[in-house]
Amino acid sequence: MNEFPYPRYSYQVQPREVDLTKKATIFTLGDCILHAAGEDADQIGFGVRELQRKNMTWVLSRMAVEVYRFPEEYERYTIGTWVGEISRLMTTRNFVVHDADDRRIAAASTCWAMIDMQSRLPLDLRENVDYNRALISEPCPVGKPLKIARVDGQLADDRRVRYSDVDFNQHTNTMKYIQWMIDTLPLERLTEGQMKRLDINFIHETRYGQQVQVYYEEGECGDRFEVRLMPEGTTACKAVFQWNKNR
Amino acid sequence: MNEFPYPRYSYQVQPREVDLTKKATIFTLGDCILHAAGEDADQIGFGVRELQRKNMTWVLSRMAVEVYRFPEEYERYTIGTWVGEISRLMTTRNFVVHDADDRRIAAASTCWAMIDMQSRLPLDLRENVDYNRALISEPCPVGKPLKIARVDGQLADDRRVRYSDVDFNQHTNTMKYIQWMIDTLPLERLTEGQMKRLDINFIHETRYGQQVQVYYEEGECGDRFEVRLMPEGTTACKAVFQWNKNR
Repeated sequence: MNEFPYPRYSYQVQPREVDLTKKATIFTLGDCILHAAGEDADQIGFGVRELQRKNMTWVLSRMAVEVYRFPEEYERYTIGTWVGEISRLMTTRNFVVHDADDRRIAAASTCWAMIDMQSRLPLDLRENVDYNRALISEPCPVGKPLKIARVDGQLADDRRVRYSDVDFNQHTNTMKYIQWMIDTLPLERLTEGQMKRLDINFIHETRYGQQVQVYYEEGECGDRFEVRLMPEGTTACKAVFQWNKNR
Repeated sequence: MNEFPYPRYSYQVQPREVDLTKKATIFTLGDCILHAAGEDADQIGFGVRELQRKNMTWVLSRMAVEVYRFPEEYERYTIGTWVGEISRLMTTRNFVVHDADDRRIAAASTCWAMIDMQSRLPLDLRENVDYNRALISEPCPVGKPLKIARVDGQLADDRRVRYSDVDFNQHTNTMKYIQWMIDTLPLERLTEGQMKRLDINFIHETRYGQQVQVYYEEGECGDRFEVRLMPEGTTACKAVFQWNKNR
């Protein structure tokens, strides 16, 4: 059944996952991409639960998502995923999203570090023979996740990290950063344009109760955002959203 | 396989659905309950898509959820659901949540009106022969959803309805009201206690861009909330959360 060289996981867009265009939101797509990553990591023996038993865990460092078409409400789609690259301190996991007719509707690439939970230091992935076996030599389906330069710009939101923002570690959920950013944009941007590429860099965790500020500036190729942890102003994450002018 | 007199739908708690206690949040459980309602309504020929073709839709008026145990991360559970009562302007849909060992971990009851999308007036459900066939005579598994009296109390949050809050109609998603309320509570309430019952009444829709205020007061049997649409102060929704003192 699977003529693809990587495993694929199945999803369906639920009513609670669409926005006012009746298509899946970018957070939904991002959530499902991270879900597929988790499922596949479990399959190859490197899931978070397995790692945590050994006092290790995965930390997401960068992510790039390219969307050609957002799936519609109730539409079924699959996410194929594989380990695409392993360097000393970082590994790449790639993703291809297909619709029911096996047309590619989105693709993504993510960079992860495996860290020791006590020291918080990254582990050398090249030394891990079992993990190296998981490598599939398929080309990366998108341009590599960008390293995003400092964002200046203006204050777009000032908020507290709330109960609904955090996971069991009291850390902000990955997709919440994107939600905070998108929520500051005018509605026309979200209904007249369609996101074609998202790059995000995760630099510093934020936790329940902390105050964060979202900064925005218009860049040459899209909207640029930075979330800063207050009162120090430490950069927590930076992102660039690129849009198609007409949907 | 199904010795239950009603259909059951399967779910699994995903990492993005847990809170800092590593158990499913009440919004996740509520979302899945509404998802099961949608699936079952589709099955009996009264799903939203089917109704909308006839210019009708469902409107949720009240909901009560009782939780005996919140499912843990990765735990699988089922939601059984059936139409329990049909009166002139309102129908009741009931829910029972079972864990993998068929132990009841939660239950719920919801009241819905079927409205004409043009006039916004409710339709007489007793006249609908096909809908009456869907009735299953099983007792309601929880005390009926309460009619909640006016909430006075103090201002707990003042916010704009954002992109991530709304569905394709630009209306606030049902579970977002509960999220707004819960996000105003101190963390200890959410980690030291466990919600045992939630009652919520939906009175007036809110839309993208509108300003809303959340009011809170401590009641005799729990936390009482009201969301008001500003600047008029129209009541949008009211809720009561009851807690177990020790988890």
